[in-house]
This record gives sequence, structure tokens and C-alpha cells, in this order.
Amino acid sequence: MAAVALVQGASRGLGLDFCRYLLLKKSPAAVIATCRNPDAAQHLAELSAQHAGRLTVLKMDVNKEDDIKRAAESVKSAFGKVDLIINSSAMLHPSGKGETSLRDVSAQGTISTLVTNTVGPLVMAKYFVPLLQKGTGAFGQQPPEKAKQHSGIIVNMTARVGSIGDNVLGGWYSYRMSKAALNMATRNLSIELGRGQSKIVCVSLHPGTVNTDLSRPYHRNVPKDKLFSTEYSVQCLMNIIDNLNIDKTGKAYAWDSYEIPW
Amino acid sequence: MAAVALVQGASRGLGLDFCRYLLLKKSPAAVIATCRNPDAAQHLAELSAQHAGRLTVLKMDVNKEDDIKRAAESVKSAFGKVDLIINSSAMLHPSGKGETSLRDVSAQGTISTLVTNTVGPLVMAKYFVPLLQKGTGAFGQQPPEKAKQHSGIIVNMTARVGSIGDNVLGGWYSYRMSKAALNMATRNLSIELGRGQSKIVCVSLHPGTVNTDLSRPYHRNVPKDKLFSTEYSVQCLMNIIDNLNIDKTGKAYAWDSYEIPW
Ligand SMILES: NC(=O)c1ccc[n+]([C@@H]2O[C@H](COP(=O)([O-])OP(=O)(O)OC[C@H]3O[C@@H](n4cnc5c(N)ncnc54)[C@H](OP(=O)(O)O)[C@@H]3O)[C@@H](O)[C@H]2O)c1
Ligand SMILES: NC(=O)c1ccc[n+]([C@@H]2O[C@H](COP(=O)([O-])OP(=O)(O)OC[C@H]3O[C@@H](n4cnc5c(N)ncnc54)[C@H](OP(=O)(O)O)[C@@H]3O)[C@@H](O)[C@H]2O)c1
Repeated sequence: MAAVALVQGASRGLGLDFCRYLLLKKSPAAVIATCRNPDAAQHLAELSAQHAGRLTVLKMDVNKEDDIKRAAESVKSAFGKVDLIINSSAMLHPSGKGETSLRDVSAQGTISTLVTNTVGPLVMAKYFVPLLQKGTGAFGQQPPEKAKQHSGIIVNMTARVGSIGDNVLGGWYSYRMSKAALNMATRNLSIELGRGQSKIVCVSLHPGTVNTDLSRPYHRNVPKDKLFSTEYSVQCLMNIIDNLNIDKTGKAYAWDSYEIPW
Repeated sequence: MAAVALVQGASRGLGLDFCRYLLLKKSPAAVIATCRNPDAAQHLAELSAQHAGRLTVLKMDVNKEDDIKRAAESVKSAFGKVDLIINSSAMLHPSGKGETSLRDVSAQGTISTLVTNTVGPLVMAKYFVPLLQKGTGAFGQQPPEKAKQHSGIIVNMTARVGSIGDNVLGGWYSYRMSKAALNMATRNLSIELGRGQSKIVCVSLHPGTVNTDLSRPYHRNVPKDKLFSTEYSVQCLMNIIDNLNIDKTGKAYAWDSYEIPW
């Protein structure tokens, strides 16, 4: 059965480029792209036209549990399984910029950031795990021992600034907190879903600093060779994904394959 | 000037016992206890009667930014400073029990837990930092070098299960995530508030497994000598607090003074 990959938050940035990569490189993979507003997702429409029948675009605001539930039902009836889910959607803060200091913090800003960046991927797992457990292990590396093989993979896009141990600069309260909590979700999921027969590998991945809308306010502070194209970052991350197995579950990795401390 | 300590979430459990301890042991300290419903906080009323003029009870739902702001204004006019803040309020989950598995997860349950356990303490810092910067360093240890002395201390009550690295059992998604994010807040605050002239020490403390309403559903699984009284736990934690200085900021410590990994 052909591979099925789902990218959540695919209208722009890294999510869009994951779709592009999966359509070009993983030849027989079916790709499901979710986004808040499919009618406005022009790049996804173009991709869909270029790869007739291989890209399915579904409407999903990751803040709406009902949207997630409905999308899972629709994927279930169309495909019956998923092999790979990449949770890509996130924001720095509703204002578009991380808090420089405590003065910029507001309850509502932090809550919105947590809801999108952290609660979204967790609720995705709740509804999509049954489909990932029906996955056929089309992504990652399968070891010869049957007991160690996995059915599906969950990738939560994290950020190095979400590492508590690595934090020496401070700032960006909401975003940092949302990614630390997301890393805990990854870890917790890896434990629950690493047991039993249909194992799901679950990791957090940091893409580097990438040339997208999210990081745009900070681009001029980034040395040119440190600001990756989405193509380069996605290639690095897909290389990690292609080498995942159950022994690597429950960790955070950067684009260069190195583990990031919690 | 006499010491001023504020305990946020003081109606019951550890928060209540921190107030009791601070009134009994730190003789000249003024204690401010905040809770959602002062009229129903019988134990605080009793403490207030026993220690005439030393305990101030303020209404604060930590989910309401306006409550926090108002309380800070009222503390400012009554005391002009704070030396120690302990953020104690938290819940396992709105249901009263941590999620056993992903099936028990709901967006709303996770959001509520994050709002109380994580966003509350962060917003507390936003409004109380100016008062802590006016603190006179009445708690903790002051090193002889003036440049290393602190004005105030923030204690965020965390939990060992909020350690990502230490997590081998899984479950309790919302609570674990809320405490991991809180630990990031602690770390971030320690960086921002450790700079400059009026330094604030900020730590996360784990009280052990303590005989309170929060842990009640799990008491029968806990060996008797591992289930602490609030008195014992508060004594251990106050011992840590009494020995805090700026070199110990930005970390998580357990009741036995050992550091907890992130
Ligand atoms: N770029 C970097 O330097 C960098 C660094 C570290 C980590 N990351 C992480 O990498 C991931 C991708 O980031 P990016 O740079 O590609 O960001 P981006 O270009 O800003 O794209 C963000 C995506 O998230 C979607 N989104 C936001 N809120 C949503 C919601 N409620 N429901 C559904 N989708 C929502 C957006 O959709 P709309 O088009 O509908 O707004 C958009 O597709 C994020 O998790 C980010 O934290 C990025
Ligand atoms: N007990 C343990 O074994 C244990 C273990 C590890 C960590 N901890 C941590 O230790 C701290 C204290 O826990 P505990 O055992 O003392 O809990 P507890 O006995 O259940 O008391 C919880 C307190 O939080 C307050 N609270 C809840 N939501 C609030 C809100 N929105 N605004 C203001 N106050 C609110 C409650 O006030 P009301 O009376 O108004 O409901 C109550 O005073 C928590 O941070 C907890 O996570 C406890």
C-alpha cells in the first residue's frame, strides 16, 4: 500500500515545502496538506495541479478540535491509514514578534501561542493515532526484528529556543514556553505510543533558522549562511525522518541530526 | 523594613501551610495570602485571627489578569515592596485526575490546565516584578559582594513529573506539559531578572508527593513514608528558600535540595 503523509500547517513556510518535497521525492506517496483556509492557499493549489491526484487539501484550524476530528474522519475514509504526520503550524506570538521582555507579556498572548503551538499538535495525536497505528511503516527505517518495527511517525516541529537547558538569552516567553511544553508532549506520546504492537515513533525536530514569515522580523540579525532556505531545511529534516526508528523516539533533534537537550 | 512574603493560591494545601510557616517562623514577616474566594477561606481567616495584623488576604483568581493587576496595586500601596512570592496554585486537570492516556486528552482540559498552572505564574511575574525589585532581600542568603545580592525571590511550584528528561512513565499530559512550560518561564525569568541592579532569584521547587487535595486520588498508590505532610514539605522547601542566592537562580530543585533535570 502506498505511503500516506500528512502535513499540518501547509499553506506556507516549512509546511508547504514538506508537501513539495514529499510529492517530488517520495514517489508513490499520497500527501494530505491541511491549512486554515484552502481557498486562499494558492501554492497548495499549484502543487495540486502539478501532481494530479496525489495531493489532498483539507481545511483545518488546529485550534478547533472539531476541525481535527473531522479531518481525521475524512482521512480515515479516503486512506484508512497515515504513515507520517508533520505538525508544522506555529506562531511566535499573536503580535508576530516574540516578547523582548516581561513587559510585553500578556495572558491572552501567551494563551493563544500555547493553544496553536502546543495544544494543537497534542489534539492532532489524539485523533490521528488510530490512523498512524494502521500505518504500514512507510517512513523511517525498519529494523529486522518485528517487535521493534513501527507503523507510523509523528514529527512535532519544535525550536532550539524551546530547550530549557539551552536557554541563555531569555525573551520570547510565549514561544519558548509553548515549545518546551510541546517537547513534553512529544516525550509523553513517545512513551504511550512506543508500547504495544503498533508502535509510533514521535520526535521533535528543529529546522534551524529558516527564511519564512515566522522568522522574518529577525532576518537582518541572522548571518546569511545561517538563514536556511525552506528547501535546505526540509531536505535535512527529511533525511532525519528517513532514518528514524523506535530507538530514536522521544527526543528532540536539530536539522544537523544532533540531539537538543530538554 | 520588615520582610514581606506573598503566597499565591493560599486557601488550601501547600499554599496555606506556607502562610502558616511564614507567620510562625519568620517572626517579623508580613504575609499576603491570595485566593479565589476569601469569604470561603476559613483556614486563612483562622490564621488571620491568630496573628493579628500580620496576614493580609487578597482576592485573586490567577486566571484573571485584572485580579493580578489589582492585587499588585493593593500590595504596592500597603507595603511598597515584596521580598518573596510563592506561586502555589495549580490543578492536575479540570477533571481532578491526570489523563491516563491520550484518549482522556481534550483541548479544553489542556488549555485550562495551562492557563492556571503556567500562564498564571508568568502574569504574576509581570505585575509583581516591580515590587520584587523594591524588595530588601529579606529572604535567601545575601553574599557579601553587593553586585551579587538580590532584592526578591520568585518560587514557582513545579513537579518532578514536569521534568521532560525524567519522564519514563508518560500519562498526565496536561499537568506535565504545564509544569515543563512553567519551568521554561522560571528559566526565562531568571535570565531577565538576574541582570541589572535589583536582581530577582527565580526557581522552580518540587514539594515531593504531599498529602493534599491535589494528590488525593493517588494517595493509596503512595507508600506511607513517601507521602509527606504539608508541614514537612513546607519545612524542606523553606530550608531551600532560606539558602537561595543569585548563583542558584534559574533551576528546579526538589524538596531534598537536589536539582531536577529539565
Ligand atoms: N522559520 C524558522 O526560523 C523556525 C525556527 C525554529 C522553528 N520553526 C518552527 O517550524 C514550524 C514551521 O514554521 P514556519 O517558519 O514554516 O512558519 P510560517 O512560515 O510562519 O508558517 C506558519 C504556518 O502555520 C500555520 N498556522 C498558524 N496558525 C494556525 C492554526 N491555528 N491552524 C492551522 N495552521 C496555522 C500558518 O497558516 P496560515 O497561512 O493560515 O496563517 C502557516 O502555514 C513552526 O512550528 C515553527 O515554530 C521555525
Ligand atoms: N500535592 C502534591 O503531591 C504535589 C506534588 C508535586 C507538585 N505539587 C505542586 O504544589 C503546588 C501546590 O499544590 P497542592 O498540593 O497544595 O494543591 P491543592 O491542595 O489542590 O491546592 C491547590 C490550590 O490552588 C488554588 N487554585 C486553583 N486554581 C486557582 C486559580 N485559578 N486561581 C487561584 N488559585 C487557584 C486552589 O484554590 P481554591 O481553594 O480556590 O480551589 C488551592 O488553594 C501546585 O503547584 C502543585 O502542582 C503538589
